[in-house]
Amino acid sequence: MRLTTPTLLLDKKKCLNNIRRMVQKAKENGIRLRPHFKTHQSAQVGAWFREYNVDAITVSSIKMARYFANQGWNDILVAFPANVLEMDSMNELASRIKLHLLAVNEETVEALAIGLKHPVNLWVKIDTGYRRTGVLANNHTDLDNILKKIKESDMLTFGGFVVHDGHTYKQTDTYAIQTIHNTSVYLLQLLRERYIGQFPDLQLSIGDTPSCSILNNLSGVDEIRPGNFVFYDLMQQRIGSCSFDDIAVCVACPVVAKHQKRGEIIIYGGSVHFSKDALQQEDSSVIFGRVVEFTNDGWTAPVNGIELVSLSQEHGIIKASPEQFDRYHIGDMIGILPVHSCLTADLMKGYMTTDGEVLEHLSGVSQRELKLL
Amino acid sequence: MRLTTPTLLLDKKKCLNNIRRMVQKAKENGIRLRPHFKTHQSAQVGAWFREYNVDAITVSSIKMARYFANQGWNDILVAFPANVLEMDSMNELASRIKLHLLAVNEETVEALAIGLKHPVNLWVKIDTGYRRTGVLANNHTDLDNILKKIKESDMLTFGGFVVHDGHTYKQTDTYAIQTIHNTSVYLLQLLRERYIGQFPDLQLSIGDTPSCSILNNLSGVDEIRPGNFVFYDLMQQRIGSCSFDDIAVCVACPVVAKHQKRGEIIIYGGSVHFSKDALQQEDSSVIFGRVVEFTNDGWTAPVNGIELVSLSQEHGIIKASPEQFDRYHIGDMIGILPVHSCLTADLMKGYMTTDGEVLEHLSGVSQRELKLL
Repeated sequence: MRLTTPTLLLDKKKCLNNIRRMVQKAKENGIRLRPHFKTHQSAQVGAWFREYNVDAITVSSIKMARYFANQGWNDILVAFPANVLEMDSMNELASRIKLHLLAVNEETVEALAIGLKHPVNLWVKIDTGYRRTGVLANNHTDLDNILKKIKESDMLTFGGFVVHDGHTYKQTDTYAIQTIHNTSVYLLQLLRERYIGQFPDLQLSIGDTPSCSILNNLSGVDEIRPGNFVFYDLMQQRIGSCSFDDIAVCVACPVVAKHQKRGEIIIYGGSVHFSKDALQQEDSSVIFGRVVEFTNDGWTAPVNGIELVSLSQEHGIIKASPEQFDRYHIGDMIGILPVHSCLTADLMKGYMTTDGEVLEHLSGVSQRELKLL
Repeated sequence: MRLTTPTLLLDKKKCLNNIRRMVQKAKENGIRLRPHFKTHQSAQVGAWFREYNVDAITVSSIKMARYFANQGWNDILVAFPANVLEMDSMNELASRIKLHLLAVNEETVEALAIGLKHPVNLWVKIDTGYRRTGVLANNHTDLDNILKKIKESDMLTFGGFVVHDGHTYKQTDTYAIQTIHNTSVYLLQLLRERYIGQFPDLQLSIGDTPSCSILNNLSGVDEIRPGNFVFYDLMQQRIGSCSFDDIAVCVACPVVAKHQKRGEIIIYGGSVHFSKDALQQEDSSVIFGRVVEFTNDGWTAPVNGIELVSLSQEHGIIKASPEQFDRYHIGDMIGILPVHSCLTADLMKGYMTTDGEVLEHLSGVSQRELKLL
């Protein structure tokens, strides 16, 4: 198919390899893989996981949960502090699937206990170092109060403790990531010891993409929830989670202008396509993507001497060596690996596989259409 | 109406005031206002401009041009280097509206001359200092070659010279913005003098939001093309283009968690809602939005001691003074002025006016629906 506008290409073979490796790792560790679907947000990519017997998933909003519930998924964790304003939607979901929610504060548990009409598994978010959200692992007072409230409610079953180690994203060596992960698992196990008497079925859930990709031993928890691994991206390659060759998405962008004297190529592809997430370079400059060359069935590793260095709303500026500059002409499509594939996929609103198949992304489905589902 | 998820609120009164002021300024200067519609991308907001007799518009993609052509706009400039891969769409548009395109390179003109089947007004993008894209104003060799190619084509009529002074966005004082604008107008007038003999109808088009908002005298050109002024945002307030009170959009976000010890409120509202555009503070920290309080018919100016300081995909972290922290509870909606309204609107995919009216944004219309238009 002839591409004419910025298009998010998806290499299905690479994607399936990424899925298979993570499924295999979970199996070897004897734990459940509950993949986070916020990265792809696609009915079709989701279906690929089913072929590997994945039947429980993670999402980050009620809207996403409804979308995947409508695709037949019926064991869904919304890994985001429950938004009590969406009680009606939560009830609708809880009436038809096994819904898992998350709480950080006692007030949330109180509101859920009052508003829910169907049983829900409620997990408690624990902060073991990321400091975004969650009850601090040693804050037993708050935990006691929250768990007491959960126990008192007929609609709430305590699921267990959930951690997201987002601070692994700042690391670039295995030892640092290992240390973060071990700390979290240790703190989670202390919590299990403390509360297992009261809640014999409580589970431990963890799992950012760096830890789950880099570490082999993921034992000590019941489930992992990585998401980004399905596509990976330049940030994950920098962290060490993947090689360039594992990155399964690439944005194809038209070349629309060239400025020879300063070696700059202007592409149709800006912050409304890539997002403004940048990757800092050694000289502390930043890049927004790296250029690859298209092959018969996909693309190469990133080429040296040519990078996406600036984004405005629809324009991207590529800086190129004289040799690379001359390879591209107005009207060519140029391939760019994104810095952060989750945000790029959300903005691109859909995929085209390297075999020419068009895949959906939730953000490309309009509100009107969602109501029809 | 009861809001339950992140919602982009639009104060129609403020928006109409912003439109009216710019219309008035163009009138006083005796020049045409060709507003850039990439900021709102909304059929309904577009219609508000019609009431002020605006009949010519600017967009930044062919897709946007088609959307507004379908809404009855028939004089549209695509202010982006023509993407020659979209020849079929350009032809379709050129067959039914007065289409203006932009070129930076001779190769683009050649491809258009070959591919176009309907007449088009072709403008040349001039770079007067922004250094994103455009022919340098003193590069007469390239300009001579480009204009010769335009003249030779039956389908192309030379429209004139277009400048976008994006570097005004880095300024925060009137004098700097005045200097940038005067330089561009001067360089454009030199070009007019040089080419008016060959092209007696050539026009000069300029107009970023800072210059058009701050300067009173915009004479010396034929048209201005500001866009962001329709909503403004924190970045424009910082530059001096508007007051806080002129900012016509505000994101309402649910409070989903609270961390008292560190004074942090977690909202449902992240980079997929706001974009990652940040505003640097005096202490070189960055913020992603400022908090306002809702009133009966809109919202207040930003409150001190409470700011949106961090974003991940769906979470936002608000840092609050103890006093402000106590004002908000789980399940409340909190109002946040965005840093960059163009990107926020693109991500939010639609608006709700403070009167409860739902307005469309092009990014919320699916590909499927667009084909039906």
